[in-house]
Amino acid sequence: MPKLIDHQQRREEIAAAAWRVIRRDGVAGASVRTVAAEAGLSVGSIRHVFGTQSELLAFAMTLVMQRVDVRVADQLPLGTPHSAEEIAAEFLPLDEERRAEMEVYLALFAAAGVDPGLSAVRDETWQGTRVACAMIIARIDTANELTDDQREYETVRLHALLDGLAAHLVWQRDPNPESSRRVLVRHLRSVVDGARS
Amino acid sequence: MPKLIDHQQRREEIAAAAWRVIRRDGVAGASVRTVAAEAGLSVGSIRHVFGTQSELLAFAMTLVMQRVDVRVADQLPLGTPHSAEEIAAEFLPLDEERRAEMEVYLALFAAAGVDPGLSAVRDETWQGTRVACAMIIARIDTANELTDDQREYETVRLHALLDGLAAHLVWQRDPNPESSRRVLVRHLRSVVDGARS
Repeated sequence: MPKLIDHQQRREEIAAAAWRVIRRDGVAGASVRTVAAEAGLSVGSIRHVFGTQSELLAFAMTLVMQRVDVRVADQLPLGTPHSAEEIAAEFLPLDEERRAEMEVYLALFAAAGVDPGLSAVRDETWQGTRVACAMIIARIDTANELTDDQREYETVRLHALLDGLAAHLVWQRDPNPESSRRVLVRHLRSVVDGARS
Repeated sequence: MPKLIDHQQRREEIAAAAWRVIRRDGVAGASVRTVAAEAGLSVGSIRHVFGTQSELLAFAMTLVMQRVDVRVADQLPLGTPHSAEEIAAEFLPLDEERRAEMEVYLALFAAAGVDPGLSAVRDETWQGTRVACAMIIARIDTANELTDDQREYETVRLHALLDGLAAHLVWQRDPNPESSRRVLVRHLRSVVDGARS
């Protein structure tokens, strides 16, 4: 089925081009026109993938979720508190790639407030992060010391902390990724230490 | 000097109109044109206050900072751990007014990434919140139990947690303000309990 293969290849080319534009110029610089130019394609020929700026954002967000899923899946089999810290750190923009991902994430949430078409992708993304936080908390609580109420509280707290640390890094007001990572790890270790005290 | 008084009155009328539009239609619905219409003024007559959407956003953010300052100032003389919790809660969108303020705050940070003209207001806002967090941590640490390193860590952690909880409320994914407030209060109490253990 060469037609189908071509279609998939084309999507991947466009995805790669969208990503290069976002990393270089930010979300605001990524439009149907600039991504088409980057991919060396006509605007018309990429309309079947996305036709508007908000479809481009939804498309980029879907790519982010796939990338995070792949990286988290690498850590999953380990099942240790250390791997939980590694998984949590995947949600922080600690390098240029994750910084671009987080910029897409924040732009999506800002845009979804005024663009109902984006709300499904936003909800899926938010819920995915919340579930990941619950999983991280369960994983660092190796000795099952947390009550259900504590697990719920720690999940909500971790989710808010992660999004806050990530936003501060993207806004470049906390310009030191390693320092943010240390805050995160210290927090995760205090969760279980706190339950013991 | 009636001229000066008129000028100040006009600014306040425009500020009130901008605020009504933002609360009703969100930041995206607030433009020079819609705010002028709301104030019953011509677009030309409000150009001396702001001429563009980004100047409107900077103007609205300055209003937010003034409002927060006034509310925090009410809590300052009390000097108790309880007043520290009240001050921290001022940074969460627990009612419609604070929700509109937080929407302005998040929109400003999103816009400042692509609009260098907004970066001074953004920096001032971010730094003001960081200083407030340091003050809150100092205030709950009544017995001076935290080391300098712990204070710095707790300040960064509280700032990220506050911005994360606030963003989740604005995005309406955590739709229960009281539940977010309980997470915040529980977090603040654990800061000092954690230092004791």
